[in-house]
Amino acid sequence: MGNPKSIDDINAMDYEDFISHFGNVIENCSLIAAAVWRFRPFRDVVHLHEALCSFVDDLPVSGQEGILRSHPDLAGRVAAAGALTAESTLEQRSAGLSQLTAEERAELTNLNERYRGKFGFPFVVCARQNKKNSIFEGMHVRLNNSAEEEVAKGVQEVKKICYLRLLDLVVHEAIESKY
Amino acid sequence: MGNPKSIDDINAMDYEDFISHFGNVIENCSLIAAAVWRFRPFRDVVHLHEALCSFVDDLPVSGQEGILRSHPDLAGRVAAAGALTAESTLEQRSAGLSQLTAEERAELTNLNERYRGKFGFPFVVCARQNKKNSIFEGMHVRLNNSAEEEVAKGVQEVKKICYLRLLDLVVHEAIESKY
Repeated sequence: MGNPKSIDDINAMDYEDFISHFGNVIENCSLIAAAVWRFRPFRDVVHLHEALCSFVDDLPVSGQEGILRSHPDLAGRVAAAGALTAESTLEQRSAGLSQLTAEERAELTNLNERYRGKFGFPFVVCARQNKKNSIFEGMHVRLNNSAEEEVAKGVQEVKKICYLRLLDLVVHEAIESKY
Repeated sequence: MGNPKSIDDINAMDYEDFISHFGNVIENCSLIAAAVWRFRPFRDVVHLHEALCSFVDDLPVSGQEGILRSHPDLAGRVAAAGALTAESTLEQRSAGLSQLTAEERAELTNLNERYRGKFGFPFVVCARQNKKNSIFEGMHVRLNNSAEEEVAKGVQEVKKICYLRLLDLVVHEAIESKY
């Protein structure tokens, strides 16, 4: 994470600066930012986002599941250990997940386990666009989906998370919300 | 990095243990280990290596270049800052790269820069199978290759590095050397 940079400054970055700035726009998957570096120069934040999304879309299902698995559980063990990435810490906090009652925490732990048990990857949602109630509801609903549906749904959420992280890192004109 | 585990223990690992054990078998690309988790159970270390290599082979060139970019320069800035991964530290040391003369260091810095300048990714070589002289020679030779040849060559070295790291992490019978 860093201060927002202009697209010109970004296009002039050497690789180390680029990866230090954008390495975590997809959680714990710096390989994806490393891959799209070849597509510079980027016209704007939307172009950069499209390059990242296109790479994700072209991965086999195993790779898309790998991206989902690289995300922490919501209010899970990693969060409890204080070991979330800086970005996830802020996002989970913004959804109210850092202030759960004991009952809510127990329910979320249970839902996390059921979800992981069914699909083999964690529940991924764009926390900044949700509050804890909508997250709980979403987990109940999405637990009924097929694995195929949940890979697609999870990847869609990854792209939203990525876009909001990018908006924090790239100076941009007022742009229409993509999500 | 951890102590070697039997393949049965590995197949019984939960995801967090698996990624903690194998997350860096391809340098800074834990996404790849995260992806192949779906292919458990693995018969043996060779099977696990094949799953990782197959994922790498199926990536577009941008992804393969991204893997190469996720590697540090040999005896470069990351090494000088003491910020190499544990695995790279040992590997670079085994090749004698932690004990360069000032002249050798200057030459290596120059070669690293020329290589990166030409190809847009760092020179990747399996340091455990080389000593510094053969690394210097290899850099001179490989600088003459095309970018396409160097992506292929670099990926081949990534697979060797990965295999040797896996042999340290998985209990195995005496097996024929793959490389």
